[in-house]
Amino acid sequence: MPLFGGIEAGGTKFICAVGSGPDELLAQARFPTTTPEETLTRAAEFFNQFMVQTQTRLHGIGIASFGPLDLDPHSPTYGFITSTPKPGWQNVAIRDVLLARTGCPVVIDTDVNGAALAEGIWGSATGLSDYVYITVGTGIGGGLIVQGRPFHGLLHPEMGHIPLPHDLTKDPFPGICPFHGDCFEGLASGPALQARLGQNPETVPSNHPIWDLEANYIALALQTIICVVSPQRIILGGGVMQQTHLFPRIRDLTRTLLNGYIQARALLEETDSYIVPPKLGSLTGVLGAIALAQQASEN
Amino acid sequence: MPLFGGIEAGGTKFICAVGSGPDELLAQARFPTTTPEETLTRAAEFFNQFMVQTQTRLHGIGIASFGPLDLDPHSPTYGFITSTPKPGWQNVAIRDVLLARTGCPVVIDTDVNGAALAEGIWGSATGLSDYVYITVGTGIGGGLIVQGRPFHGLLHPEMGHIPLPHDLTKDPFPGICPFHGDCFEGLASGPALQARLGQNPETVPSNHPIWDLEANYIALALQTIICVVSPQRIILGGGVMQQTHLFPRIRDLTRTLLNGYIQARALLEETDSYIVPPKLGSLTGVLGAIALAQQASEN
Repeated sequence: MPLFGGIEAGGTKFICAVGSGPDELLAQARFPTTTPEETLTRAAEFFNQFMVQTQTRLHGIGIASFGPLDLDPHSPTYGFITSTPKPGWQNVAIRDVLLARTGCPVVIDTDVNGAALAEGIWGSATGLSDYVYITVGTGIGGGLIVQGRPFHGLLHPEMGHIPLPHDLTKDPFPGICPFHGDCFEGLASGPALQARLGQNPETVPSNHPIWDLEANYIALALQTIICVVSPQRIILGGGVMQQTHLFPRIRDLTRTLLNGYIQARALLEETDSYIVPPKLGSLTGVLGAIALAQQASEN
Repeated sequence: MPLFGGIEAGGTKFICAVGSGPDELLAQARFPTTTPEETLTRAAEFFNQFMVQTQTRLHGIGIASFGPLDLDPHSPTYGFITSTPKPGWQNVAIRDVLLARTGCPVVIDTDVNGAALAEGIWGSATGLSDYVYITVGTGIGGGLIVQGRPFHGLLHPEMGHIPLPHDLTKDPFPGICPFHGDCFEGLASGPALQARLGQNPETVPSNHPIWDLEANYIALALQTIICVVSPQRIILGGGVMQQTHLFPRIRDLTRTLLNGYIQARALLEETDSYIVPPKLGSLTGVLGAIALAQQASEN
């Protein structure tokens, strides 16, 4: 099996791995996201050491990164992290740095496009061509796979920033998105829950009313995504979705919101297999990066 | 040039044509949408008469239809109009009837996917691969083109039914969608404007406050669509968009709503060429149907 490198480039930590799939991971490293120079140097050294020690050459390295990213191959800033609020990381040429320091072909995409691709190859969306992966955690993002490939369009989807109905009489919280206030991420990300509660949402019992609110916002977002792209399946991952009691509520609310308008069995009766958790667990991110490198090498 | 037939199957009228593009339309007919039997018979007779009189064979017929439609080729009800509220038209096998009565290959897609395709071949989206066409008229719908082809996913997009923020203190109107009340179509379609005003919206001057409200809902929908699929361009057609004064307001509001988050010149500075009217005018629909037939014949 040809070996690939993968980097899950997150806002708080980087995970690097070498392998060819979930059952073939030969080396792994994880370290905190500090400055771009320090963090990218550690990532490059991980792959270089692997190649020296094993006397093998990686067929390519994939980066599944936080964003926003410039993914237009014709752009002078292709492969850059662009307008992130993360200090020090604006306009970082993450792809170019890895390419220059490892000599391997490097492909980059959003963390959620990578995760979506990995779930399609090894996880909850095998056999499907057109589906969505959403992460609800520190941030909210969505990856869209079309015909088995990550979709970009003008830039790439930013599903965390869709506007949602927000009933201020039921939920006076103004939202925490610095750009949009009460967009999906502003209302329903982990930090939004924490800010409302004044405590870590993981410590709050499943019968607390905040979970009904949370399920409602996620269901509104799913209604939105279903009406815009009609995915064959929606995978919901991320830290907040560790609250597995949310799944049945989200399925019920999504069905209620759609109200039978879209005549598809998946939405009318089979929401248990339509709105699903990821299968790859904490490895989804780095496996997504490996999947990106594999797919790029096949072209 | 091989000749194709096209049917724009609308809720109030059918338009049929034979040709190969906007400058090569050899025959046209339009008639009101009555019962399925009567309407589909007239459509089939139009094509059959053309073929007899000209001693030519159509390479295929495309139908760009109101919906919702079953577009899954593996489904027993493939090519049916399904859950439409239009009396008598539920579960009508529109594709099968045309196929049986003309003997030509028949392909069907949504009216908006057809219009989107036609605008990509001959109109406002030439040269683009991933874009959206939205019609705001009697109903609201959106077509999504990915890699130059109409996108379906599970069923097909239903962009008129996305939920939107609705500030009841500014706009107490409850919305008119029988399924969702105040979804995009429920708030912003032509009939929603008419119900709010108690008169035909076409008779209302451009400085009437309803147009600010309308531009705001359309801009919220565009923010949603941009965040979900990141199209390379958005074409806005349909009867309501004949109010061309809406375009600059929608562009400004969309930019304001996105608030600089998505770093793409098209959204930051060049919204004049990002949010555009269709170029094909009243022929978009039937040309879309012809485009569907042409594309199907190339496969």
